[in-house]
Amino acid sequence: MRVIGIDPGLRNMGWGIIDVSGSRLAHVANGICKSDGKADLSNRLLDLHDQLTAVFSEYKPDAAAVEQTFVNKDAVATLKLGQARGIALLVPAQAGLTVGEYLPNAVKKAVVGVGHADKKQIDHMVRLQLPGVKINGVDAADALAIAICHSHHCQSAGHLSRAIAKAAG
Amino acid sequence: MRVIGIDPGLRNMGWGIIDVSGSRLAHVANGICKSDGKADLSNRLLDLHDQLTAVFSEYKPDAAAVEQTFVNKDAVATLKLGQARGIALLVPAQAGLTVGEYLPNAVKKAVVGVGHADKKQIDHMVRLQLPGVKINGVDAADALAIAICHSHHCQSAGHLSRAIAKAAG
Repeated sequence: MRVIGIDPGLRNMGWGIIDVSGSRLAHVANGICKSDGKADLSNRLLDLHDQLTAVFSEYKPDAAAVEQTFVNKDAVATLKLGQARGIALLVPAQAGLTVGEYLPNAVKKAVVGVGHADKKQIDHMVRLQLPGVKINGVDAADALAIAICHSHHCQSAGHLSRAIAKAAG
Repeated sequence: MRVIGIDPGLRNMGWGIIDVSGSRLAHVANGICKSDGKADLSNRLLDLHDQLTAVFSEYKPDAAAVEQTFVNKDAVATLKLGQARGIALLVPAQAGLTVGEYLPNAVKKAVVGVGHADKKQIDHMVRLQLPGVKINGVDAADALAIAICHSHHCQSAGHLSRAIAKAAG
């Protein structure tokens, strides 16, 4: 199963793709979709949409997850983030995928083991779990962490449904 | 010139289209794109995107405007609205249009004459300016008001550029 994680943002939208086979993870690719801060908002969103769509076309993920952003105090920033997040959710749906959503704490817990890890710890654990990975910036590291989190979640869901099937057996 | 106004919202996304010829306005169509509150967020956004894209395909507007939403106190609602607004801005950009953005007060001022008009006044003035219009709900009325506001703005910009051209001789 190929999983894409997306860390939404208007200026920098991180993405990271991993292949999952049982409990084994392998890095596929990661990067950042960028939009020009000087362009008008609708064209920035179009830019992000087209770049992210190109990533989906190239790597054809089977599953997708997006960070369920913490709502901060600054409403203007929240609205901006919401607009970028709309694109991050739309593109997987256009590819026919359902989208997992995870709170930042859940992502940290899945990758580092605790919910209050900092960026450095996440980066470190992502590198440990994806040997040889070359990470294209902080937002791409976050996106890989989201993909890892989703792969754990899918595995647990798989174990659970198999256990239920066996018990029902 | 055919102008579409869009009033973004996750549950109800209003749209209204008018034809503008000099200072004459004519109603073309209006409606509401809806998404199912029980569906997951990415599919709701996809639904809105597809419905709004269909409106653009059918009516082929030449210009588009979206309400520049007032940021309210509730950050969760702001994030939701932002996501819907991302779609409202993306679709015109995909159709190759630049998007005018207007604060609610600017829309009210353009349509009613004052910046603090209520919904009823807007509805009334939209009906006066678009004789015979049948309005499909409050969000569609708002969207028509946004389209009217944008048509005024484009006309002023046109007058100004012609005046400048004339002065420049």
